[in-house]
Amino acid sequence: MVSVYNADGAAPLRLVSQIRYELLTLGDELLLGLTANGHLTFIGAQLGRRGAQLRRNVTISDEADLIAEQFRESWARADVVITTGGLGPTCDDRTRDAVAAVLGRKLVFSAVVEQAMLDRFSHLGRKMTPNNLKQAYVFESGEVMLNANGTAPGLWVAQDNKVLIMLPGPPNELQPMFVDQVLPRLAALGLLSEREAYVQLRTAGIGESWLETKLQPVFDRLGDALNVAFCAHQGAVDCRVSSPNGLLSQTQLTEIAGECAQLLQDDFVCYGHDSLARVCADLLRAQEKKLAVVETATGGLIANAFTEICGACKFFAGGVVCCSNDTKMQLLDVPECLLLQHGAVSDEAAVALATGAAEILGADYALAVTGFAGEATGAGGNPVGTIFVALFSPAGVWSKKLSYPGPRATIKVRAVNAALDWLRRELLRVQSGAATPARRTGVMQ
Amino acid sequence: MVSVYNADGAAPLRLVSQIRYELLTLGDELLLGLTANGHLTFIGAQLGRRGAQLRRNVTISDEADLIAEQFRESWARADVVITTGGLGPTCDDRTRDAVAAVLGRKLVFSAVVEQAMLDRFSHLGRKMTPNNLKQAYVFESGEVMLNANGTAPGLWVAQDNKVLIMLPGPPNELQPMFVDQVLPRLAALGLLSEREAYVQLRTAGIGESWLETKLQPVFDRLGDALNVAFCAHQGAVDCRVSSPNGLLSQTQLTEIAGECAQLLQDDFVCYGHDSLARVCADLLRAQEKKLAVVETATGGLIANAFTEICGACKFFAGGVVCCSNDTKMQLLDVPECLLLQHGAVSDEAAVALATGAAEILGADYALAVTGFAGEATGAGGNPVGTIFVALFSPAGVWSKKLSYPGPRATIKVRAVNAALDWLRRELLRVQSGAATPARRTGVMQ
Repeated sequence: MVSVYNADGAAPLRLVSQIRYELLTLGDELLLGLTANGHLTFIGAQLGRRGAQLRRNVTISDEADLIAEQFRESWARADVVITTGGLGPTCDDRTRDAVAAVLGRKLVFSAVVEQAMLDRFSHLGRKMTPNNLKQAYVFESGEVMLNANGTAPGLWVAQDNKVLIMLPGPPNELQPMFVDQVLPRLAALGLLSEREAYVQLRTAGIGESWLETKLQPVFDRLGDALNVAFCAHQGAVDCRVSSPNGLLSQTQLTEIAGECAQLLQDDFVCYGHDSLARVCADLLRAQEKKLAVVETATGGLIANAFTEICGACKFFAGGVVCCSNDTKMQLLDVPECLLLQHGAVSDEAAVALATGAAEILGADYALAVTGFAGEATGAGGNPVGTIFVALFSPAGVWSKKLSYPGPRATIKVRAVNAALDWLRRELLRVQSGAATPARRTGVMQ
Repeated sequence: MVSVYNADGAAPLRLVSQIRYELLTLGDELLLGLTANGHLTFIGAQLGRRGAQLRRNVTISDEADLIAEQFRESWARADVVITTGGLGPTCDDRTRDAVAAVLGRKLVFSAVVEQAMLDRFSHLGRKMTPNNLKQAYVFESGEVMLNANGTAPGLWVAQDNKVLIMLPGPPNELQPMFVDQVLPRLAALGLLSEREAYVQLRTAGIGESWLETKLQPVFDRLGDALNVAFCAHQGAVDCRVSSPNGLLSQTQLTEIAGECAQLLQDDFVCYGHDSLARVCADLLRAQEKKLAVVETATGGLIANAFTEICGACKFFAGGVVCCSNDTKMQLLDVPECLLLQHGAVSDEAAVALATGAAEILGADYALAVTGFAGEATGAGGNPVGTIFVALFSPAGVWSKKLSYPGPRATIKVRAVNAALDWLRRELLRVQSGAATPARRTGVMQ
């Protein structure tokens, strides 16, 4: 039997990094690929930022026998077990009963939960159907975490010196409940620490193996004291340095990361988890410049990346998503003769789109992405995966031709990252006062 | 010992639905929430469409001991084990060695794989670093699946009447390899069937519990012969009916799904996996109409949903993403006085944006979404989560005010779904020849 916390709930008996967290995500929809397992991403990140690493995530079908078997196994092995899903009102919601049977605990009807559900339905102006009442059954002598964004409450049970946390499946219900109710309870028991236990460097425009080769001198010097993990995302690679045996302090890890950043020069994007768009946004804000975007092949994903950032209107002049020549002519004054002569997927069209967007939207910088992202055969001898990116800047306008293999979604993300990384490098060049633009490839006007 | 296939590899010994597939996804980046587990979504869907349900997905860290322990457990329990990740060139890629040790198999250097890597690097005009050679080690007497989109090959091992499939981690490498090389091999062994083993109904604008209540008469009549699972996605709920014990044929399941669709009337969106945008696109194409969109709060996600569809220029006139009033005035001729009088987040602004987009882009329909999706406090007394959607159509233009709780990403998806569902219902109404628009809420101009 593992003891996670003292009887008085005060001091932890061991390091947060040693506490074994397991996550059980339940639902056929996950195994059938109908829904992405966002709970792993969210809960993993939340715990990771507080020094606790999720040890394992198991996804199984929501059959009662399977849930019981898997829960029994995880409960025996872990210190904290988190389940998601299967608490809802419908007949496929079986988690509560299956887990109660394994723990040997009774489920009792909670009038408080029932009232919260009635209030919610009345607030939404809807009638509560009787099957909802199933969600009012909670563990006897467990804690209930009321659900501000849905009907099924979360459940918290301390037993066998372990903690069980059962959360509803919809992300908009789970996420606020996790942040507002689960994290504070875990912190109060000493099961989370205060700071991140690693440093992450984000890079762009450099492959994973070349990245490792560049950083190898640092890794060789530190040997086993340092743990290094790489993660590639379509044109961007993250490198995470940590100290699994605690030989290096956070300050030392920060210094090591700084040394890596210097070795990487412009390929280094940022520490932590900021997106390429956010890094560009910070540079644009610092230089008091505005950006416009025009997208065909990336369909609005670049615009979306910028509008995700608070206060985007300070630096984002707007975006246009077009697929027909008409739109390009109507909104951006691109001459029809240019599109007909060179084709809509060409260096010339990309340059004209970027220039048109910058002029019409009064922006200092503009990115244009045009190309063939999938399925339809490329015209004019350009195969699927051919992308032209143009960058308009106060120093001039250039375009470059890129070529990516793979399915449409991959091509789109790679094109988004390539465009954002190009803008980032140009903004860095201006910031550092370098004389000539970093890259002058493709057509120049 | 479970026998998956005959010695001659011909006839399967049992139903595809009984074959136990397990997926091991390896990588700290998954457990730390730095990357979504897209492999589960992709592989789960691919298998599900061929009648095989993934039984379990386990995600663990890429430590050699953990990999060995988990692989041993999964190999004992499953018929087919698929691993993803940990085959790359860097020091944290340990899967190949760990698994070889459990299986008691030797890894041998493959000159074929080395040559494929050299060709790839030379094609990309890059120098191959020596750490890449690690990827050329493959199982003795196993099969190698060459990687058209990266360096690490996939590995296929048949042993103990089971199959092990090891795939590289990057999705753009894994996905084509799975479709082109893994699925045909599995099908040849009789481990996949030809058709989907369930029927899915997509619905929109109806809650999960109300959906179940509406369909209860059908479920009651069929009892245990029918398995029903629901999955809610921010304003849309999927309902999947299947026959776990094989009592109902695919034809019967299709009839049952048809009965459900009739009960749901306009809340029924489609069978299968089509997106709301695709359903709208099909209706637009059938009616030979074009759509324009203007987005502030949804930042380009609606435009992106439509441009995902092949041949989008046939029905998609274009999109504008704006956050400042300047953009609205410059691109869409929205009068400044209107924005100043009513505010940019108002029924009036939404209606003006939709009308402007339809007129300037020459579209028959237009959707406009404006609102406060997150963080920044809403101006004019509107809290965060307030969204105005306007629909311009040949029959008129209306707007409605919506209000969603939760984080920015949730609000955005709900707003996208609400806007698309409104358009869908209006297009359905026109198609059916109904006289009056289905919903006239909010301001009308």
